[in-house]
Amino acid sequence: MINYNPRKWFSFIFRFHKADTIRTLSPAIVLMSLYSWGAVYVERVFLHLPDNSFVKNIPTMHGLLGFAISMLLVFRTNAAYDRWWEGRKLWGSLVNNSRNLAVKLNSMLSADDEKDRSFFKKLIPLFADELRLHLQNERTRLALDTAPHPDIPGFDTSKHIPNQVAMLLMNKINLLYRDQKISGHQLLMLNNEAQAFLDICGGCERIKNTPIPYSYSVFIKKFIFFYLVTLPLGFALTMGYLTIPVVAFISYVLGSLEMIAEEIEDPFGKDDNDLPMQRMAENIRKNVYEILA
Amino acid sequence: MINYNPRKWFSFIFRFHKADTIRTLSPAIVLMSLYSWGAVYVERVFLHLPDNSFVKNIPTMHGLLGFAISMLLVFRTNAAYDRWWEGRKLWGSLVNNSRNLAVKLNSMLSADDEKDRSFFKKLIPLFADELRLHLQNERTRLALDTAPHPDIPGFDTSKHIPNQVAMLLMNKINLLYRDQKISGHQLLMLNNEAQAFLDICGGCERIKNTPIPYSYSVFIKKFIFFYLVTLPLGFALTMGYLTIPVVAFISYVLGSLEMIAEEIEDPFGKDDNDLPMQRMAENIRKNVYEILA
Amino acid sequence: MINYNPRKWFSFIFRFHKADTIRTLSPAIVLMSLYSWGAVYVERVFLHLPDNSFVKNIPTMHGLLGFAISMLLVFRTNAAYDRWWEGRKLWGSLVNNSRNLAVKLNSMLSADDEKDRSFFKKLIPLFADELRLHLQNERTRLALDTAPHPDIPGFDTSKHIPNQVAMLLMNKINLLYRDQKISGHQLLMLNNEAQAFLDICGGCERIKNTPIPYSYSVFIKKFIFFYLVTLPLGFALTMGYLTIPVVAFISYVLGSLEMIAEEIEDPFGKDDNDLPMQRMAENIRKNVYEILA
Amino acid sequence: MINYNPRKWFSFIFRFHKADTIRTLSPAIVLMSLYSWGAVYVERVFLHLPDNSFVKNIPTMHGLLGFAISMLLVFRTNAAYDRWWEGRKLWGSLVNNSRNLAVKLNSMLSADDEKDRSFFKKLIPLFADELRLHLQNERTRLALDTAPHPDIPGFDTSKHIPNQVAMLLMNKINLLYRDQKISGHQLLMLNNEAQAFLDICGGCERIKNTPIPYSYSVFIKKFIFFYLVTLPLGFALTMGYLTIPVVAFISYVLGSLEMIAEEIEDPFGKDDNDLPMQRMAENIRKNVYEILA
Amino acid sequence: MINYNPRKWFSFIFRFHKADTIRTLSPAIVLMSLYSWGAVYVERVFLHLPDNSFVKNIPTMHGLLGFAISMLLVFRTNAAYDRWWEGRKLWGSLVNNSRNLAVKLNSMLSADDEKDRSFFKKLIPLFADELRLHLQNERTRLALDTAPHPDIPGFDTSKHIPNQVAMLLMNKINLLYRDQKISGHQLLMLNNEAQAFLDICGGCERIKNTPIPYSYSVFIKKFIFFYLVTLPLGFALTMGYLTIPVVAFISYVLGSLEMIAEEIEDPFGKDDNDLPMQRMAENIRKNVYEILA
Repeated sequence: MINYNPRKWFSFIFRFHKADTIRTLSPAIVLMSLYSWGAVYVERVFLHLPDNSFVKNIPTMHGLLGFAISMLLVFRTNAAYDRWWEGRKLWGSLVNNSRNLAVKLNSMLSADDEKDRSFFKKLIPLFADELRLHLQNERTRLALDTAPHPDIPGFDTSKHIPNQVAMLLMNKINLLYRDQKISGHQLLMLNNEAQAFLDICGGCERIKNTPIPYSYSVFIKKFIFFYLVTLPLGFALTMGYLTIPVVAFISYVLGSLEMIAEEIEDPFGKDDNDLPMQRMAENIRKNVYEILA
Repeated sequence: MINYNPRKWFSFIFRFHKADTIRTLSPAIVLMSLYSWGAVYVERVFLHLPDNSFVKNIPTMHGLLGFAISMLLVFRTNAAYDRWWEGRKLWGSLVNNSRNLAVKLNSMLSADDEKDRSFFKKLIPLFADELRLHLQNERTRLALDTAPHPDIPGFDTSKHIPNQVAMLLMNKINLLYRDQKISGHQLLMLNNEAQAFLDICGGCERIKNTPIPYSYSVFIKKFIFFYLVTLPLGFALTMGYLTIPVVAFISYVLGSLEMIAEEIEDPFGKDDNDLPMQRMAENIRKNVYEILA
Repeated sequence: MINYNPRKWFSFIFRFHKADTIRTLSPAIVLMSLYSWGAVYVERVFLHLPDNSFVKNIPTMHGLLGFAISMLLVFRTNAAYDRWWEGRKLWGSLVNNSRNLAVKLNSMLSADDEKDRSFFKKLIPLFADELRLHLQNERTRLALDTAPHPDIPGFDTSKHIPNQVAMLLMNKINLLYRDQKISGHQLLMLNNEAQAFLDICGGCERIKNTPIPYSYSVFIKKFIFFYLVTLPLGFALTMGYLTIPVVAFISYVLGSLEMIAEEIEDPFGKDDNDLPMQRMAENIRKNVYEILA
Repeated sequence: MINYNPRKWFSFIFRFHKADTIRTLSPAIVLMSLYSWGAVYVERVFLHLPDNSFVKNIPTMHGLLGFAISMLLVFRTNAAYDRWWEGRKLWGSLVNNSRNLAVKLNSMLSADDEKDRSFFKKLIPLFADELRLHLQNERTRLALDTAPHPDIPGFDTSKHIPNQVAMLLMNKINLLYRDQKISGHQLLMLNNEAQAFLDICGGCERIKNTPIPYSYSVFIKKFIFFYLVTLPLGFALTMGYLTIPVVAFISYVLGSLEMIAEEIEDPFGKDDNDLPMQRMAENIRKNVYEILA
Repeated sequence: MINYNPRKWFSFIFRFHKADTIRTLSPAIVLMSLYSWGAVYVERVFLHLPDNSFVKNIPTMHGLLGFAISMLLVFRTNAAYDRWWEGRKLWGSLVNNSRNLAVKLNSMLSADDEKDRSFFKKLIPLFADELRLHLQNERTRLALDTAPHPDIPGFDTSKHIPNQVAMLLMNKINLLYRDQKISGHQLLMLNNEAQAFLDICGGCERIKNTPIPYSYSVFIKKFIFFYLVTLPLGFALTMGYLTIPVVAFISYVLGSLEMIAEEIEDPFGKDDNDLPMQRMAENIRKNVYEILA
């Protein structure tokens, strides 16, 4: 993740960071420009279309559909951002639960119970590590795909590591209770944190393995494509070669919106905009060590 | 459910998957094209309407209503997507609760209590299976319909299977408590998971048996229909035969939005975009087996 | 409530169900058509307004306000739908709580405790029945009105029946605890369900007795009215007698949106789109009987 | 609060209730009309601007900004309505918690424990009364203002009354537990309700003392003002004296949206649209008396 | 934070508070005006572009993209406001939890237990103080940045102070339990409040260290910039020197929306619109002192 000062307009506008959509989109924008040049050339030079040709009125269609495409892109943007932010919230609540579990155990375990303390000092941060690895595993992304995946080894038979870590934690907590190191009321106090681990894991898996419905994804891309492709046809007569920068700019805008949405709708990858899971896991380890010291 | 790589624009634009709206809509689009051709022919060739005919100004109406139709379709899209995503969340929480219940029971039951372990190993995944069957049953969809359904056998008298499974689970848990295999505090620890099953079931039933209000559904369809049907009347004079592809494209856009919304507003069916309940139930079984092994 | 197959476009478009807004609105639409005819007649035949009259530019205003009216209607639609859906959720959670309470009690009470079982078998579904009657009572709708209502007998003195039923349930549960039929831990397990009844009742009352703020309701209606009334004045010169169907269609669209919102913002009435509370209460009774059999 | 029948369109359109924005706005609308008349007079009679003057194209700007102003007003409307509805929800949950606390205590206290019963009969409704007074106190509204308020007596030193009432309730409940009138499990059953009082109080205070950020409020008002003030300049040439009613109508629409939002964003005042806190407090008293009778 | 009376339109429109965007934006607006003047001069005087030049049709592009830019800015506004409001909610819940913890402890601790009372009287408000300092620390903002920060001393090694305070509170509470000053049931009653402190801290950290994705921030700024820069090119021929105020006004509107969003998306700074954390911490201290007196 990149942290930035949002008020430095100048650097935002004139520097081209590698996470900038303008970089990735530039080939497509060049292509659209060439195509626009072609469209203008054909209509004006080759066909000598008169100024009152029907073609001139095509932009009416783009006007009518302008609402639709904007609202669809905002729907897309909102859905993607909500997924990204929910992912961040889930990891935030992983941080909270790890800290609270450590704080509670620290106050319940006797100060010299080195063995139990070091167990939790190791296991609590381990969950965050394993969850990160689990989420970045291709198997997790495809867990609900209908197609078979013989190419991925152990697709159906490998163990679910976060489950295993949560199991170890829960076993230990119940063991402390059976050994009367913690009372029944203290056991209940630990319940929320102990069960939160798997709730968080399930929430992240949901975001990871369930993209927005396939039909929307296809439709939005087809819509943008046809919208852009028909733009120069209508603009050629009213704008001449100005059509080229205009279409390039509109392509940049629509393309960027879709591209950013694609990137952030799965917040558990390794893109620049994705969540810094490794750093968060490190923070959890640092905090838990500090607390259970 | 189809899992896909959202960045492969090329295949999205030029391949026509069977879940693509363009397939289902193509007859309607062809019809609209023929109708548009007819409208243009009548206005231009048959009636010889002059270029300054009032008919030319009809698109003003489409402009004014363009906002309304776009916003209505976005409302529709949002409502449908929220239902779909809520359905996914409910099944996600079924996964979480099944795992947590298994993890907790595993840590509470003694390691050699084969009988109780195998009971839960069987019953917990069974709930997911039965819930899936229950949701795909036509009876469940029509549970709140005002009309009688004599054609569906046992419509009012059949037992509610998920209730029965939840009952067995709850009975067993209270039995463990009465037999002092688990303490009162451990019983309370299991409470959340034990009651979650029926909450999830009720949530899914709500989505299944309560579509968006009938009046909206009717109104949106009527609105789209009249909007599209009047389009070629206004475009004929300003666009000539270009009216045909333009109207076809607008029909494709509005039709697709409504069609996708229809498909995903009930996420518990068997469409390509519906939730992969069978696969999720299998995953629950796999997880629970692993944990209670 | 009407359950329907959303994919049958044909019947949606060409059949006029009695819940269809086109029926209720038809007198208003006829009126608007007559008025439009009058406006066109006066402007064109009586006043012989020239084609470049200022009147021709009035639609600019409708264009500018078109955004505002659309967004306001979407705000209205969203607010109404949210209330309707929240009402459905509350009743859904009544179903869930009734089932869970029955399942829990079934597992706690001894199998031959006929007396207590039949008490809950009767009282749990009774709450749903009484809640329905309470919500359909005019007293409940006007509970927070500032004006006095001497015309409604017992407006301020009648007892609150759902409270009474919830009280009986809570008393019984605490009695079971005092008689040591259930333990303290089991008492705590029942706490969520026992207190949910009144939370649900309060939530429904809130929706019932608090419509959207009066000022919005007045403003939206006044805005729609003036918007529609000024439409034909501007269209008469550019569309001639085509103004009549155009204004009729726009009236249909704006009127329908407001009308449907009105209908669903109170989901506890007896309209076709309202929640099928009676049927839900019957389902609760059936489920509870099955469980506590 | 005013309760109304939303289907009486006629009275909504032609009657002018004192809560109607048209009343409060009428001076501003008259002013705008005079100003518009002046603008038209100057441009047409005084300056004799030709018909193709650049001034004629100013409305292009209003078109471009029309989206922005509409969306901003909808953002404003949504934010204000959410605050109002959250306030209603908080008071709704106060009703629920008061009822549930009374129902629970009624079932736990012995039937002849007149002293404790009358304590809660008095204290529970007292919280609602005191909360209302607290929220209507100017001190509460300005609690977080950075400016000092020497003009308000006891601004920083007065006691927080709702806190005191909640304290008395909590003390009594713990006393009942210490005197073994209720068991530890029953104490836990009362925990949710007992702590809800201060959560609700804090939620209401948040809405009361934190208006939407100052910058937005200033910006929206400045934007509306400049938007309206430049309107007649552009319309004078294309609409002549029709500019006057057109600008008056647009002023009415934009002004009303902002005005209603202002009124409902603080739902705890004494406006017609504000929440009927007194009536709700009375209902709580009536309910609690009925239950703890 | 500035508290204000939203109904004083006059002062809103004609006074320029230092938190007013018009102040900060004025240099940019002046620059845009100069640039616009230059554009008009070049097109009209220098190049003598004819009135039917293609350049005249550039505003079509601004019309098509007008939807997109408005919706994007509303998305931005909503996201920023949600973060600000969530921050306010978190601090509101800090107030509630501090009060509730104090009220509960007051009712559990014996009246003459001066030592424990003064411990909590000091520690509970301390958490709010430390949380404020923690959030205003540059280290906290950059906690998840991928870049190293050798310039900030102790970036990775400093202790997490709010954790330490929460630890002291939790330790004390468990000590009271071990010393049998509070019972197990009372311990459970304190659980919610005790764990809320770290949940709130984590929530605030999330808002602080995770700005909206970098790509959006870059894209929105680039989009606004190009949109504004191309405006005068298109307006020069249709509006002449009127282009200057028109472009200045549009720049003011778009710039303000982005600027306010920037300011409130991090509610834990020291801007005029930021949350008054110091004042809230003081209120917590005052309340806790009053309660535990």
